[in-house]
Amino acid sequence: MKLSRLFTKTEKETPKDETSVNAQLLEQAGFVYKNNSGIYTYLPLGWRTLNKINAIIREEMNALGATELLMPTLVNKRYWEASERWDVDVMYKLKDETGHEFGLGWTHEEVITEIAKRYVQSYKDLPFSAYQIQSKFRNEARAKSGILRGREFLMKDLYSFHRDEADLQRFYQDVLNSYLKVFQRLGLDAYVTEASGGAFTKEYTHEFQVLSEAGEDTIFYCEKCRYSQNKEITNLPQGGKCPKCDGTINVGKSIEVGNIFRLGTRFSKAFNLNFVDEKGESKPIVMGSYGIGPSRVMGTLAEVFHDKSGLLWPESVAPFKVYLIALDGAAKEAAKIYQRLWDHGVEVLYDDRDDKGAGEKFADADLIGLPIRVIVSSKTLKEKSVEVKRRGKPGMELVPVKDIGKTLEK
Amino acid sequence: MKLSRLFTKTEKETPKDETSVNAQLLEQAGFVYKNNSGIYTYLPLGWRTLNKINAIIREEMNALGATELLMPTLVNKRYWEASERWDVDVMYKLKDETGHEFGLGWTHEEVITEIAKRYVQSYKDLPFSAYQIQSKFRNEARAKSGILRGREFLMKDLYSFHRDEADLQRFYQDVLNSYLKVFQRLGLDAYVTEASGGAFTKEYTHEFQVLSEAGEDTIFYCEKCRYSQNKEITNLPQGGKCPKCDGTINVGKSIEVGNIFRLGTRFSKAFNLNFVDEKGESKPIVMGSYGIGPSRVMGTLAEVFHDKSGLLWPESVAPFKVYLIALDGAAKEAAKIYQRLWDHGVEVLYDDRDDKGAGEKFADADLIGLPIRVIVSSKTLKEKSVEVKRRGKPGMELVPVKDIGKTLEK
Repeated sequence: MKLSRLFTKTEKETPKDETSVNAQLLEQAGFVYKNNSGIYTYLPLGWRTLNKINAIIREEMNALGATELLMPTLVNKRYWEASERWDVDVMYKLKDETGHEFGLGWTHEEVITEIAKRYVQSYKDLPFSAYQIQSKFRNEARAKSGILRGREFLMKDLYSFHRDEADLQRFYQDVLNSYLKVFQRLGLDAYVTEASGGAFTKEYTHEFQVLSEAGEDTIFYCEKCRYSQNKEITNLPQGGKCPKCDGTINVGKSIEVGNIFRLGTRFSKAFNLNFVDEKGESKPIVMGSYGIGPSRVMGTLAEVFHDKSGLLWPESVAPFKVYLIALDGAAKEAAKIYQRLWDHGVEVLYDDRDDKGAGEKFADADLIGLPIRVIVSSKTLKEKSVEVKRRGKPGMELVPVKDIGKTLEK
Repeated sequence: MKLSRLFTKTEKETPKDETSVNAQLLEQAGFVYKNNSGIYTYLPLGWRTLNKINAIIREEMNALGATELLMPTLVNKRYWEASERWDVDVMYKLKDETGHEFGLGWTHEEVITEIAKRYVQSYKDLPFSAYQIQSKFRNEARAKSGILRGREFLMKDLYSFHRDEADLQRFYQDVLNSYLKVFQRLGLDAYVTEASGGAFTKEYTHEFQVLSEAGEDTIFYCEKCRYSQNKEITNLPQGGKCPKCDGTINVGKSIEVGNIFRLGTRFSKAFNLNFVDEKGESKPIVMGSYGIGPSRVMGTLAEVFHDKSGLLWPESVAPFKVYLIALDGAAKEAAKIYQRLWDHGVEVLYDDRDDKGAGEKFADADLIGLPIRVIVSSKTLKEKSVEVKRRGKPGMELVPVKDIGKTLEK
């Protein structure tokens, strides 16, 4: 894509009304636009990155055997009353003129449980799992962490349905492994962290925590065996010995990028969601619920991968792989290279602005943070080469123009 | 995909609380689930079809040079006040505890105009266009048309920005042609229909209307040259001569599947969105706005393409291409064919239920309405063949098992 088509621009100054690093960088680089506190537009660059994050999540959810659907944002009061969650503080509520009341979906256990009731009757219909990726809404009292804690944010929510706790446990473990794979592909080093099961289960539940000073959580963790507990529940000794290995327990602030819950029969009982087993006995279905926030993931990536010049996207989620710059009259050759790279399946953002100098283009390339910068200049074209530089790595290399497609297609 | 993984089921009876054909068929076949009047869940089959519709729309929007983004659902009162649309009847409104008021996005001219204000200053920044595909909200007084008129529905909204009316007119014509291509690819025969420009323009605007008894509009149209006007503005004589050719004017009910608007400077003036031209003069930007409702398109397809046995999806939007059925002990061979078809890139839904008879499977195949039904039975396997039948077409053909991939990959 040509830069001119994006229509957004980088900004010279850090936005004044943002206090979090992720929002400062993402706004300055033209990935997001703040409409209100906690409410953002995902601009073309940000939307491309979010779609890459979503695509990775979808692949791994589908590999679990889950199927995708889309539930409504307008969730009628009757759903929340059935589960006794109508009075949840963070829910945005509205009433229409005919008196119908809705809560804006911040989670969908209630809706999916009612839907399952229509289709699931027998043990033969179990297990199954379904997920969606959707804007969710939470009326956060404070929304100062940029897109780490938005009032409107993207969520992937997966729900699973089982005949008994043992089958839930099997799937729960599958999801845990699937999530580790998701975060690994996203370039994030996530600790599987024990946390309180809250109202749903007496057992621990698991959070996926990424170490970052921007985080609102604190985890106690062992770097060696990766055992980890949330501060809220832990008795682990800071600086002491790990109970699982001979490592040492560290403490750090962290961002919760995912969580998995054993819901048990909390919702199936509220909605009378039962199944008939082989003996003809009716039993409540056992459920699980599993979340990843793609927009929070994008914010986490910005927090974890940046330097003083700007963002440094992992290749798997970069909006484009290559930032292409033409210098001093090399525009014609650059346009050819642009086309050649796309022909090789390399996603290129071409800085085609003719009223900007080299310094400004280099600064924007660093700020936007694509993995590879390619510079086409008359100087290196004399050697039939272009300059290739990896973002955040020292040095550069000259690559012959004729090899540029093959070299960068990976 | 195996049918068991969908988790939804077809229903024997037409749902009693639906009066529209699209909702009756789509609910019975397991494409949608009605949560409330005008509020639906898109179940896995429906979500797949919607994604195919969205993919076609995206391709054509990208071909126009438009770029995709995602704007918020929570649109602050200040936006609607700036354009004097806070009192629009159909807008769902809410107020949070701190007194912030929002309207749920039913259109996004205001938001995109404010965003453009940050990035567009010069004639060099023009023209550009941006679009999104998003759930939108309208508090319809009556929502009796299934997914043709939802309170929550999917919308593709495109906005364009120009230096003058002439450039808007050029792009408006490009969008008109692009929309015709979209609807053609979707299998819909849409009439470009002149309609009132409303508050935005004194000129006609254009609607894309598909003839259907389920429609809420009425158009006067010429089959021969395809000239068409909305009843609301027309003086054309029913049964009389077409003013553009020697054809005859017919009248019919129709569904509006898209519309395109010349907004002029209505919103740029409200938000002081100006640009500086070559002479240094500041001028308001001229805008256009263009909509297609993917969920309404899905409803229209159901209205237009069905028979007494069920749905008949055009191949471009069918959730799968092939419905695969194994009869009398041919399951093992069917599983092989299932894999072979996927290897050839053919999307297959495999009815792997072992507790259902042939009659029930045939009925479900017709109801769900995939373009091709493949039956694997021991009878035809003796001739090393399977039975291939096109939905809605008479007769069937025997295709050798070894050729099935190549034959159906198209």
